Amino acid sequence: MTERRTITPPHRYRNNDKAVGVGNAFWDLSERNGLAGITAELEDGEPGVLHTEDGHEFTNFTCCSYLDLDSHPKVIEGAVAALRRFGVLDHCIPRTRVQLPALPELEASLGELFGAEVVAAISAGVASAGLLPLIASGHLGNGVRPLMVFDRNCHVSMAAAKPTCADETEVVTCDHHDLGFLEDMCARYERVAYVVDGADSLGGYAPVRELAELQEKYGLLVYYDDSHSISAYGERGIGYIRSHCPVLDERTITVATLNKAFGTSGAAILLDGYPKDTLRVVERFAGALSYSQPMNTAAVGASLASAEIHRTEELTVLQRRLRANIELFDRHISTGQSGTTFPIRVVSMSDETVMEAGRRVYEAGFYVSPVFFPIVARGTAGLRVMLRAGQTEEQIRGLCAALAAVGAQQAAPAEATR
Amino acid sequence: MTERRTITPPHRYRNNDKAVGVGNAFWDLSERNGLAGITAELEDGEPGVLHTEDGHEFTNFTCCSYLDLDSHPKVIEGAVAALRRFGVLDHCIPRTRVQLPALPELEASLGELFGAEVVAAISAGVASAGLLPLIASGHLGNGVRPLMVFDRNCHVSMAAAKPTCADETEVVTCDHHDLGFLEDMCARYERVAYVVDGADSLGGYAPVRELAELQEKYGLLVYYDDSHSISAYGERGIGYIRSHCPVLDERTITVATLNKAFGTSGAAILLDGYPKDTLRVVERFAGALSYSQPMNTAAVGASLASAEIHRTEELTVLQRRLRANIELFDRHISTGQSGTTFPIRVVSMSDETVMEAGRRVYEAGFYVSPVFFPIVARGTAGLRVMLRAGQTEEQIRGLCAALAAVGAQQAAPAEATR
Repeated sequence: MTERRTITPPHRYRNNDKAVGVGNAFWDLSERNGLAGITAELEDGEPGVLHTEDGHEFTNFTCCSYLDLDSHPKVIEGAVAALRRFGVLDHCIPRTRVQLPALPELEASLGELFGAEVVAAISAGVASAGLLPLIASGHLGNGVRPLMVFDRNCHVSMAAAKPTCADETEVVTCDHHDLGFLEDMCARYERVAYVVDGADSLGGYAPVRELAELQEKYGLLVYYDDSHSISAYGERGIGYIRSHCPVLDERTITVATLNKAFGTSGAAILLDGYPKDTLRVVERFAGALSYSQPMNTAAVGASLASAEIHRTEELTVLQRRLRANIELFDRHISTGQSGTTFPIRVVSMSDETVMEAGRRVYEAGFYVSPVFFPIVARGTAGLRVMLRAGQTEEQIRGLCAALAAVGAQQAAPAEATR
Repeated sequence: MTERRTITPPHRYRNNDKAVGVGNAFWDLSERNGLAGITAELEDGEPGVLHTEDGHEFTNFTCCSYLDLDSHPKVIEGAVAALRRFGVLDHCIPRTRVQLPALPELEASLGELFGAEVVAAISAGVASAGLLPLIASGHLGNGVRPLMVFDRNCHVSMAAAKPTCADETEVVTCDHHDLGFLEDMCARYERVAYVVDGADSLGGYAPVRELAELQEKYGLLVYYDDSHSISAYGERGIGYIRSHCPVLDERTITVATLNKAFGTSGAAILLDGYPKDTLRVVERFAGALSYSQPMNTAAVGASLASAEIHRTEELTVLQRRLRANIELFDRHISTGQSGTTFPIRVVSMSDETVMEAGRRVYEAGFYVSPVFFPIVARGTAGLRVMLRAGQTEEQIRGLCAALAAVGAQQAAPAEATR
């Protein structure tokens, strides 16, 4: 028998050997230090406080439910009410054929709330996997097949679509927020689409105003995932991008999860200036949006309830509490994000000490997540902290003390007593 | 200013111009005939009976909840109980870091039920999008990078992964169930993985025993999506593939939605013979499984309740009712699927008459979905009928009469009176 063929992979856009090789070591080390693979139940009535089966209690400082709406009684009761009203989690048939009124009601409510045409998706990842190839082929946009420029740091849920987009158009990756490169491409290509996080998972916002200039000048299409700022930021929780982007027409497409500050599950695609025909194309051809299960009725009911909260003063109060908690943290611990509105802080540690530091902070009763080389660049390791509206002053002071005890840089005295 | 560049797409694995061009006309025509874009509420206590806002009532014969577990009171109450117990739909943090006990409990329950190692996913589409690239790179399998052979008819949720897999290995498409081609590839390549529906959405099963011979002889890996037969078929609803596949080890990977006959939402990945380390690789690197939201607690609670029903005689009763309904239908209307256990029937019509026929059947109070060229091959148009356990004899007789009235081929008298 002749020798059978082995394969050399192209690895143009992805490389599992590298991803698994690097990532698995990171996760194994995290797990050996007790900072991954934790199973824990939430304490009744104490948002974000969990206990493990063996009795360790900790406050979660790596949860993206920035307003603690996930445990809001009205959100839970909204889910229950929808289950009872519709009588099913889902009535399995493509929504393009027959659908319960659940999704249309949710889309109408979110559309009114955010001032956009809204299409629901089961997750922001599924939304991006469905939308980006339609953008690549020009079916979502102005009809012209664009050069797709992916920001080097854009979330993996978007970066994962590169090979698929590359079968419909040209795809390139640019340096983080490289406006010069983008303008250069805009000058060379008839149409360019830029794919970027609205709010980064390590803290920071997209340069929305500078991008708007390119949108106005060249017709650049920008695809934002604004999952980390929706609800937490802006009037009625409209998010960072839609608060600051002056271009709200076919050139700006935003997706946002409902799983973070919004407090439920599912995702919303926010569109402006597209005719009904195009919205139908999205429903029918945006990948899993057309062929897979939709948000279930429990998620829809919870989301309708959360949307109602977004329409009241309660949202402003929660946003204010989140802001106050961020400021309280900044008065004690100094980070590259100090002074910003972003709910994420990365507390610098050395690559060698970060894991041990995370373990000690966890033992002190606070879960923060270590990031280090090769997950982030050498010399930028740290403990990632997420602030929430529901954390108490005592919990935040306790975390800051625990961080200081493992060598975190403390804020200058003027800051600390401000 | 020089002319700006336009782009010629490669279209090796997909072509949105074609998909949208062809598909949109199909959907528009369906909608003009009132057979798509229907919004309707379920009747209380009458599984699969819906009414539109303007008062039209119809029995849904295109719903995949084959056992009507979607509206089972225990399933709905299971969802409610989990919402109250966990107090959130989701506590947003990657499960690799910290998770509620919800998913592990569900995975243990489904694992016991189906006799497999189970990993939960938010949908079968998300599961396939995550798993297939890991199979392509050899990380899920025996470590060897396989030639990926996609069946020409495999569901779009799997076919959509071709460009991504093609960046990790070689990808080809074969004719439907082309065992000769597969054996040829097995002889030529060190490792081959075959991607195929366990149960087709137009009726029919994979040649599981013949594939097992190739698995034994060459180490072929087979990736099945058994979404249309799980729960509806086999002891404790184990599905067609796991009922008949003698190879239950690393060479067989099955995914199945929980959104069809299982009656809830989410999906299960069924694995055998993989070490814990590999299960961790799946959780950490199978795409959205690691970076996006998991099944929410309502879906988990409903699924735990449905799993309990699967352990009782009630499941057998429901499967028997489904079988009886399929047989009742076959006694009246003749189709290519007559006499099989498959819950889907395609009632032949001409490309010219199928839409009008579907409209008249709908007006008579029964929703069936038209399929025709170019969605299916010329000369194979038809009305797709899905049988369910909860349909009454009266509803099925009524549908058959309506189908006969629009020219469906009736079963021979011997069949009809059997």
